Amino acid sequence: MAFEDIKELLAAKRYVELKERIKELQIPDIAEFIDELDTKNAIIAFRLLPKEIAADVFSYLSSERQGEISTLVDEKELIEIMNDLFFDDKIDFLEEMPANVVKRILRNVSEAERNLINHFLKYPDNSAGSLMTIEFVDLKKEMTVRDALEKIRRIGRDREIVYTCYVTDAWRRLEGIVSLKELVLASPDVKVEDIMTTDVIYVNTYDDQEDIADIFKKYGFLAMPVVDQEKRLVGIITIDDIVDVIEQENTEDFQRIAAIQPSEIEYLEANPVMLARKRIVWLMILMISATISGYIIRRYQVAIEAVVALTAFIPMLMDTGGNAGSQSSVTVIRSLALGELKFTDILKVIRKELLVSILVGLGLTCVNFIRIFYLEGYDLSITLTISLTLFLTVVFAKFIGGTLPLLAKKVGLDPAIMASPLITTIVDAVSLVIYFSLAVRILHIVV
Amino acid sequence: MAFEDIKELLAAKRYVELKERIKELQIPDIAEFIDELDTKNAIIAFRLLPKEIAADVFSYLSSERQGEISTLVDEKELIEIMNDLFFDDKIDFLEEMPANVVKRILRNVSEAERNLINHFLKYPDNSAGSLMTIEFVDLKKEMTVRDALEKIRRIGRDREIVYTCYVTDAWRRLEGIVSLKELVLASPDVKVEDIMTTDVIYVNTYDDQEDIADIFKKYGFLAMPVVDQEKRLVGIITIDDIVDVIEQENTEDFQRIAAIQPSEIEYLEANPVMLARKRIVWLMILMISATISGYIIRRYQVAIEAVVALTAFIPMLMDTGGNAGSQSSVTVIRSLALGELKFTDILKVIRKELLVSILVGLGLTCVNFIRIFYLEGYDLSITLTISLTLFLTVVFAKFIGGTLPLLAKKVGLDPAIMASPLITTIVDAVSLVIYFSLAVRILHIVV
Repeated sequence: MAFEDIKELLAAKRYVELKERIKELQIPDIAEFIDELDTKNAIIAFRLLPKEIAADVFSYLSSERQGEISTLVDEKELIEIMNDLFFDDKIDFLEEMPANVVKRILRNVSEAERNLINHFLKYPDNSAGSLMTIEFVDLKKEMTVRDALEKIRRIGRDREIVYTCYVTDAWRRLEGIVSLKELVLASPDVKVEDIMTTDVIYVNTYDDQEDIADIFKKYGFLAMPVVDQEKRLVGIITIDDIVDVIEQENTEDFQRIAAIQPSEIEYLEANPVMLARKRIVWLMILMISATISGYIIRRYQVAIEAVVALTAFIPMLMDTGGNAGSQSSVTVIRSLALGELKFTDILKVIRKELLVSILVGLGLTCVNFIRIFYLEGYDLSITLTISLTLFLTVVFAKFIGGTLPLLAKKVGLDPAIMASPLITTIVDAVSLVIYFSLAVRILHIVV
Repeated sequence: MAFEDIKELLAAKRYVELKERIKELQIPDIAEFIDELDTKNAIIAFRLLPKEIAADVFSYLSSERQGEISTLVDEKELIEIMNDLFFDDKIDFLEEMPANVVKRILRNVSEAERNLINHFLKYPDNSAGSLMTIEFVDLKKEMTVRDALEKIRRIGRDREIVYTCYVTDAWRRLEGIVSLKELVLASPDVKVEDIMTTDVIYVNTYDDQEDIADIFKKYGFLAMPVVDQEKRLVGIITIDDIVDVIEQENTEDFQRIAAIQPSEIEYLEANPVMLARKRIVWLMILMISATISGYIIRRYQVAIEAVVALTAFIPMLMDTGGNAGSQSSVTVIRSLALGELKFTDILKVIRKELLVSILVGLGLTCVNFIRIFYLEGYDLSITLTISLTLFLTVVFAKFIGGTLPLLAKKVGLDPAIMASPLITTIVDAVSLVIYFSLAVRILHIVV
């Protein structure tokens, strides 16, 4: 969005007009606008917000900006913002803040809330506990629909989601769920227990967010209950947070496929030293592994000295092998991530990859043969060596690319590490061995 | 899920028990179970479903299975399923079916519905029109909250989502939205227009699904209205369909990054010829581009003949360059997809990539120097040639990897095509030029 007009109002200190203009914007847009300002103007703009939306806007700000604002506003303002934040947004914010800000905030809340916050901060990253919110509507099964709607009217305004209500017993154990739709459609005198659903799908506080996202995707839920080890309802997870989880998990897979150690920090916010650290590990491992290809070439130095022309085709053979392998590995990695494929499908994968690689290999080899033999005029034995190597490399690359991610999954590794870079390194070495051993035989080179 | 026990009941024809057991399952699980059976048993199991859930289960089946069932059940059954399907599920189903099945179904609906279906089938794939459903609740602004809730009670049962209601005027133009939460919380005599929100964010029927998903992510919506060119409300899009869109767009990016032409068909369902076609195009383009590297090597044949040892380091240099470039390109591609980066950030990206590449390049070069000079005992001039090439290649690769996706975006191409494979091909050629021109100078080779 372009906020030029509002920025001008701010620069000209025309605050009354600015306030009016901001009122027309949606909350996430106001946050985007404040994120774009420098610190001083950001504080001014934030203070101009109507009280009732300030906390909501705050929850959409970048964590950097949240930090600045919470350090620069006075204690009273900070407490007001904190009180108006939804509990999960509060935890998200505190997780990102340095210890002194967290301390300052915890000093200003009741002991009960302090304990609750500390409890939530202890849930591992990526667990249901760290995703959930405590603002849900809980009902009792003895209530009538009229009572239930009455309770929703009373407490609903402060609840993040009221479209699913949770029915709990005296020990706060989850007994069932009932949707607001069902409550509205039911007649007022019916009991909640008569319309509630009892076979509820729930997750535990320590469940992994990726598995939870899979459940949301499968069942199309808007929210899901979270229970502790005693089966007590402790929170709910809502679909908007799951959408973020899905994107985060996808980002991790993209990073692993590109041989980067996963990180949740946005590119523009990350500093170069941190980026370099996340990238150098795999580059180093792969660089050292690539020396195997070097040894193979040195082993066949005599062959190269005899027919130097062979060298010219090394890049093409290595690249094509690497690309053919990545295609298969990324396809399998993605299918595994989407739950479309399991380890037990390995024979189907091998069969499919063999068929595909034969088709693709034949196509590439034909074009390559025509180019090398007819267009570039190499002799038949060299052309044959290169063509055969190309075909065998493609078949091997697709076999390895298709099976390694499945094997990784089987032994509990992330399949995404078996992607392009690692596959390329393996395929390189193998394609060189194929190349030179064929060359030695076909060209009758005495090694 | 393991459905062994139910499969046994089916095999033993213990249909009464089977029915009981199925009732305990969630709809998507029943669909998964039926998808796993062979055709004959699938039809039997589908016919055993209680009438009220049959259509719902049907909408979750794979399109292959949907096709089989709709060909094998009789006309009356098919009409019943169709009548019970939500409109968007019906369109999704019809889009996947061969012409004869579509004809058979259209023969059995009213003319009005036939026209509507034909209209919807014409919306382009990936447009708002092809995603939306028509089962929404529309209200008038003159209604009281009591009237509105009354209307929801009357029609709500057949509506896919009732948590946002849409207020339209006499010409069906969208005037505002009001959530069920607001209706429940408001007092019964208040007019809808007094509680509705008028600055509604909506999309047009021809808007692209990727842009729509971005809006959902930004604002955290559960549903969004779709209007036609005359601003009339024609449908709504719900978050569950958007989650599918997000995964589909991510899959496309994974495919592009791996040099595969995008396809929506699941891996296990795709036939080898189709897979080969989607893969061979880029492999062919990249194979032919890789011949540039071949020409460079041939151009420096004299250098290789003079110092054959140089060949041994070609794979390591090419691979490291390719990997360093992919890291940068995939990072930028992902940040663009998440909206964290825009073209105007290009200078920040260049600055960051240069800093990171210098850090990473130095680290790799040091390790490499030690290995080649001290451990493998190559002489200093060869070690220097390789080390300098490595450093320059990493810097160049990260520069190209960081900027090409941004340039692609700028000229309207998908940034994801500027990923690993293309970057690798470019970096290969450049690294060879750097390598040999340094070698010629440092090793005093007369070319």
